[in-house]
Amino acid sequence: MAEQGTYVEANQPYERDTRYIETRITRDGADGYPVEAGRYRLVVSYACPWATRTIIVRRLLGLEDAISMGVCGPTHDKRSWTFDLDPDHLDPVLRIPRLQDAYFARVPGYEKGITVPAIVDVPTGAVVTNDFRQITVDFSLEWTEFHRDGAPQLYPEDLRAEIDEVNALVYRDVNNGVYRCGFAGSQESYDAAYDQLFGRLDWLSERLKNQRYLVGDTITEADVRLFTTLARFDPVYHGHFKCNREKLSEMPVLWAYARDLFQTPGFGDSTNFDHIKSHYYEVHRDINPSGIVPKGPDLANWAAPHGRERLGGSPFGSGTAPAPL
Amino acid sequence: MAEQGTYVEANQPYERDTRYIETRITRDGADGYPVEAGRYRLVVSYACPWATRTIIVRRLLGLEDAISMGVCGPTHDKRSWTFDLDPDHLDPVLRIPRLQDAYFARVPGYEKGITVPAIVDVPTGAVVTNDFRQITVDFSLEWTEFHRDGAPQLYPEDLRAEIDEVNALVYRDVNNGVYRCGFAGSQESYDAAYDQLFGRLDWLSERLKNQRYLVGDTITEADVRLFTTLARFDPVYHGHFKCNREKLSEMPVLWAYARDLFQTPGFGDSTNFDHIKSHYYEVHRDINPSGIVPKGPDLANWAAPHGRERLGGSPFGSGTAPAPL
Repeated sequence: MAEQGTYVEANQPYERDTRYIETRITRDGADGYPVEAGRYRLVVSYACPWATRTIIVRRLLGLEDAISMGVCGPTHDKRSWTFDLDPDHLDPVLRIPRLQDAYFARVPGYEKGITVPAIVDVPTGAVVTNDFRQITVDFSLEWTEFHRDGAPQLYPEDLRAEIDEVNALVYRDVNNGVYRCGFAGSQESYDAAYDQLFGRLDWLSERLKNQRYLVGDTITEADVRLFTTLARFDPVYHGHFKCNREKLSEMPVLWAYARDLFQTPGFGDSTNFDHIKSHYYEVHRDINPSGIVPKGPDLANWAAPHGRERLGGSPFGSGTAPAPL
Repeated sequence: MAEQGTYVEANQPYERDTRYIETRITRDGADGYPVEAGRYRLVVSYACPWATRTIIVRRLLGLEDAISMGVCGPTHDKRSWTFDLDPDHLDPVLRIPRLQDAYFARVPGYEKGITVPAIVDVPTGAVVTNDFRQITVDFSLEWTEFHRDGAPQLYPEDLRAEIDEVNALVYRDVNNGVYRCGFAGSQESYDAAYDQLFGRLDWLSERLKNQRYLVGDTITEADVRLFTTLARFDPVYHGHFKCNREKLSEMPVLWAYARDLFQTPGFGDSTNFDHIKSHYYEVHRDINPSGIVPKGPDLANWAAPHGRERLGGSPFGSGTAPAPL
């Protein structure tokens, strides 16, 4: 996601700029970008919850060989994520130092947020899409030809309406809700976002009390989307964004649910707590001027037994887990 | 305590200015201010941990009739605590709007911090002392003539050396340690303060595991001093000062110890969580620029049973509890 510059606007609630490049990569190539192995590069940061969704789904579906991945560092400059983790600070495939270059190759002088995830067309070096809402869905539905054997159904047709409904509520109140707490420009807008967030977390706790996954009895797109926010809750959102009614680790149902996913191949191995903490605390200088990164909390407890196998269900349905990294 | 202006100095560890007005009020009046009922006014804020020590000790010893108390609001302007809770924003006894006026009556143009607690000589309107380190000790040792029947021994002679030793460690690593975390000007100084803080909290947990109070088997000055920091831990220090290895409520021994004190007359009834949260989050704009006050955490759990009666000891020794407010 974007997050360059300043985040808090005085006296205003936080409003996310959701004007993305909505071009799609599809089997029929209707937008000019057909599904094709080796042609595209997914650019992510492990810091970003929206990008991490695509990391998880790519891995669950086994698209690693079809779609390569470039990884930006956890922080970025005023305007762009950068490839500062790579040799010479250049993405080894795209040969650019800043993700902005790929946006400019698509739209000269591109003025909106330089966001991750972004998919870049390698031959032209231009961003195809940064619409994170569509990317994972297209991984599931358009890239089937390149799915690994045993890839799970993350967006099955018979559950799609319910997944969409849950996703909409989770996006508004939780995924984006934590940002509306943290970047609120007034006490009133913070208070409202906080109530909406914890109200929804209570609703989710109730829903997940006797049900292992959010929709149906296997992992779906809905779980992926909730997970990346929950993974950031205690290390970042609790303190940095003032989402502090409780820690995730004090909400027993959600905490066990999050650990269950974390311990499932594809989730915990896509989670980089160092990048997460570094990003939020170092980049958001208008809510953390010193840029100091807290040492806590202890995150070893993510490995503790969760006990949710007793609820039945099976993570990958008739499919299988991805191989260990 | 002071806390006007800015708190974080870039690239520097936080150093508290401990140059106080060290004049004492004593039985022999050696400094020109003899113990005398009705003559002095203790000025406090419920927000401030150093001031709250004096609120607690005054109440435990039953000095309310001998020493009146003025209460400043939880926030303050750039330079001074103010009497903004009082009618016409004037302290009803001193008839001044800002505590600074009493400092200026003592030292024209006083340049150091305008801090609470401060004791004001009512006839002259001048601050006698703001040396919080001495005030509570003098309440215990110099004001005995005015103690209530059944007042406890908070600084008994036979335990004094041990109390002093514990207090010195607790001051350095905990009372002031949380500020050294929160106002650190570099990652290095924060990291060092954090390790020192949690190392000391572990040491305190060990000490208090089988012993109800810090020194001896009754409440002493040492408990008062640790308590006012613990009371602020989850509502403020955990998030605002990045003291986030765990919440107090996740450190079982210290949490039970703190609840035990909180539920003892004189402690919980001297604790105003609203003033505490408002102060830190609204005043320290260089670490919380928006001034937004978090809604959490839920503090109802302070009333939960603590189970520490089984450790023996008795809160007030051969004395008694103060009457309910």
